Amino acid sequence: MKLLEIAEVINGKIEGDDNIEITGVGKIQEAEKNQITFLSNPLYEKYFDNTKAGAVIVSENHKVIQKRPGVSIVRVADPYLSFLKLLEMFDTGNDVENGIADNCVIGEETSLGKNVSIGNFVSIGKNCVIGDNVRIHSNCSIENKVSIGDNCIIHPNVSIYKGCEVGNNVIIHSGAVIGTDGFGYAKEENGSYKKIPQTGNVVIEDNAEIGANCCIDRATMGETRICKGVKLDDQITIAHNVYIGENTVIAAQAGIAGSTKIGKRCMIGGQAGIVGHIEICDDVIIGASVGVSKSITKPGIYTGYRAMPVKDNLRSEVRIQNLQKLEEKIKILESKILK
Amino acid sequence: MKLLEIAEVINGKIEGDDNIEITGVGKIQEAEKNQITFLSNPLYEKYFDNTKAGAVIVSENHKVIQKRPGVSIVRVADPYLSFLKLLEMFDTGNDVENGIADNCVIGEETSLGKNVSIGNFVSIGKNCVIGDNVRIHSNCSIENKVSIGDNCIIHPNVSIYKGCEVGNNVIIHSGAVIGTDGFGYAKEENGSYKKIPQTGNVVIEDNAEIGANCCIDRATMGETRICKGVKLDDQITIAHNVYIGENTVIAAQAGIAGSTKIGKRCMIGGQAGIVGHIEICDDVIIGASVGVSKSITKPGIYTGYRAMPVKDNLRSEVRIQNLQKLEEKIKILESKILK
Amino acid sequence: MKLLEIAEVINGKIEGDDNIEITGVGKIQEAEKNQITFLSNPLYEKYFDNTKAGAVIVSENHKVIQKRPGVSIVRVADPYLSFLKLLEMFDTGNDVENGIADNCVIGEETSLGKNVSIGNFVSIGKNCVIGDNVRIHSNCSIENKVSIGDNCIIHPNVSIYKGCEVGNNVIIHSGAVIGTDGFGYAKEENGSYKKIPQTGNVVIEDNAEIGANCCIDRATMGETRICKGVKLDDQITIAHNVYIGENTVIAAQAGIAGSTKIGKRCMIGGQAGIVGHIEICDDVIIGASVGVSKSITKPGIYTGYRAMPVKDNLRSEVRIQNLQKLEEKIKILESKILK
Repeated sequence: MKLLEIAEVINGKIEGDDNIEITGVGKIQEAEKNQITFLSNPLYEKYFDNTKAGAVIVSENHKVIQKRPGVSIVRVADPYLSFLKLLEMFDTGNDVENGIADNCVIGEETSLGKNVSIGNFVSIGKNCVIGDNVRIHSNCSIENKVSIGDNCIIHPNVSIYKGCEVGNNVIIHSGAVIGTDGFGYAKEENGSYKKIPQTGNVVIEDNAEIGANCCIDRATMGETRICKGVKLDDQITIAHNVYIGENTVIAAQAGIAGSTKIGKRCMIGGQAGIVGHIEICDDVIIGASVGVSKSITKPGIYTGYRAMPVKDNLRSEVRIQNLQKLEEKIKILESKILK
Repeated sequence: MKLLEIAEVINGKIEGDDNIEITGVGKIQEAEKNQITFLSNPLYEKYFDNTKAGAVIVSENHKVIQKRPGVSIVRVADPYLSFLKLLEMFDTGNDVENGIADNCVIGEETSLGKNVSIGNFVSIGKNCVIGDNVRIHSNCSIENKVSIGDNCIIHPNVSIYKGCEVGNNVIIHSGAVIGTDGFGYAKEENGSYKKIPQTGNVVIEDNAEIGANCCIDRATMGETRICKGVKLDDQITIAHNVYIGENTVIAAQAGIAGSTKIGKRCMIGGQAGIVGHIEICDDVIIGASVGVSKSITKPGIYTGYRAMPVKDNLRSEVRIQNLQKLEEKIKILESKILK
Repeated sequence: MKLLEIAEVINGKIEGDDNIEITGVGKIQEAEKNQITFLSNPLYEKYFDNTKAGAVIVSENHKVIQKRPGVSIVRVADPYLSFLKLLEMFDTGNDVENGIADNCVIGEETSLGKNVSIGNFVSIGKNCVIGDNVRIHSNCSIENKVSIGDNCIIHPNVSIYKGCEVGNNVIIHSGAVIGTDGFGYAKEENGSYKKIPQTGNVVIEDNAEIGANCCIDRATMGETRICKGVKLDDQITIAHNVYIGENTVIAAQAGIAGSTKIGKRCMIGGQAGIVGHIEICDDVIIGASVGVSKSITKPGIYTGYRAMPVKDNLRSEVRIQNLQKLEEKIKILESKILK
């Protein structure tokens, strides 16, 4: 693709050779002659002098330190967004072949939409509904009465237990388990535990993405619900009857215990833990490794081993750091008074 | 099923229409006309006035605020236990078809019990023993010399490494890995690590349940043992040579390091971490996200980033919260003394 | 194997019957008549009097308390290393059959080395390169353009996304996901998130071992790199564009966020969390459950909920433990001054 064509895609103005061939995108430190890169963060300006990229996207008013022969400049309104656009354009994307593998098994009364791809050794149960343009990669197990909307991608080795519902445009990464039993037992008199049947299901709404090896438990009764646009990183556990509001994003290895309700547009850090049966309101940010043991009713940032508003947490940490000084002050006071 | 028949199952006394048809169970907020629900926790009484359930189970002496036409009452000794009984009765349960899939592979010298179900693309090695009524779901890999007792359910995409032993009535959820190598290396002089062969196995006793994506490592020598009735939630790691005592329950994302021994009837919270080579006695409760770095020899509740008895931990937290006051007190003292 | 032959392997001197038959190794508490064990740690000497082992390896100058009839002694320079040698010798090892399963699927233009074993229901994409002596266990999914070096072992149910590169002598345990998408989104004006294509890959160098159910994310651009000799325990998440230096070992359930660079020979404890975009220098030891939120530029041991040098952390913990005394001292001062 000629640089001229690329400039048109991102509405940019070229300084330099507009005829060079660009075949992909790269980081400024690593990009090669036939790649285009971008410069937005001042910390990366030091790489400009040595970049091998054929072209660099910069903002309209960026003062490129020294123009270099062989490096064309493309000026745009927002270099990062323009770059993302190209990243997407050059993405070779998902490359499962169209078509249904000879060796997959599709149960009775299961309907497939148009243009569906199903990989090797995929097992789909009975009475399932699979939408249009769905791509299911190899070795997935989808049990009876599961529904999957249009345009979904299910990566290899995913397990979806019976009766779960997946919306449109959902991506589920490898090893994720959707609809496993919630952790529910009744204690018997002899100290053993009797399993409480987990009769509900999991509902994943449109545009959600579920990371690799995540576990989302089915409800005891009713449903565990992952709302529209929720993004889960890898290795997250969502317990039974949890509700995660629209456009909430959760980083890797976080865990949400049973029946907790998380609001919309929350951001939950990696390894954070949220106990069961509480509510987190909309627009809450929870730091990495934070433990939340009570409901949160005010938007804001919460940090600490026991979650508290970030300012309180910082003050508390400073006070602990100052304990040595406090001890010294008391010693001085004692030496004055208790002699 | 008529309400009359249901009342017999749970030994209840009906007030209202005993002839209505009940087809399932539901939560009091969500139950529909042909469902039965229960009322036990006073916090849920507010839902009684609007429930659409056809029948509500209450305790013998419960004062139902206002009887409603169309809602039959069933009085029992323990509403929650009665409800669990019905939950179980109406559970459609595991719905893998009986029978052995045409496409699964079963190794030489492997014996199968009566009434075994094996799903699509299951690979079972040589010299295995599979008990009666076992259901192995699709895409599981069971390696050589594994034994599985009667009435076990192995969900999709489970891996069981060679030589592991699983008792009767065990449930293993999707993505769990049983018998992976323990994390053992000998440091070489050049700074690299040489793998120590992990020659032991994993033994899972009767009635245990292993959550989705759990990892239980095989012993270096000897065995890693999960005793009778142990219940593991999702994404737990149990390292090599660990021993977990009878009827201990562990919540999601906890980790137990190598050679540690956990007693009977312990409860371990989500994301808790227990170091290697220690012992936790019987009847210990460890909170969520607690770190245990020393043996625990007395039953009780332990909490904190470094585990301590819960009362000590609470006192310590209160003292930290009071640090501001302490600082102020010292300031006052200083102003009196050090002027 | 006669004890005499074993003594030759480990260059040991026998005291006792050199003609006994040894068929395996065992722990001193558990070993049986035809097994050999070792004694190195003084804490285990108490087991010597009752061991049923046929032979015990001890150091050249070890004073065996009381020689016992039927227990031969083998004296060597380093009992532990000698024992590891035997552990390895008696290890029955990986027992997947040589050969390519009839039912696996290997894509077009994919090349296989010599002596490759591929298990049941393995799906390998197009344009892959698989080296010599590689063993891929059942139900693995390897997508297009993946390369795997010589002598690798890929356990069941592993997923390797397109374009990833695996070196020689690498072991990948069950359920691991290599090359899943990094967690990258651009926030839209309406509060939803747009996926940023993850166009890079994962490179795993020679002699690395990847634990069960680990997730290693592909880079947004460029690569996520696991260097030579790195050992990852179970359930670790490595985010996009992370770099882990040579011979670094990481314990179970730790997480490394995006673009972070870890040095060589580091040891990272279980459940530790390291934020994104920082650097950890060589030879750093990070304790279990430690949170690292800033770069570390000096080798040493770091502990605490917020990582700090271990001595500072211990002092800080002691000060918190002493808070009660501090409060009492202030009370005394107040009673003297503020009456």
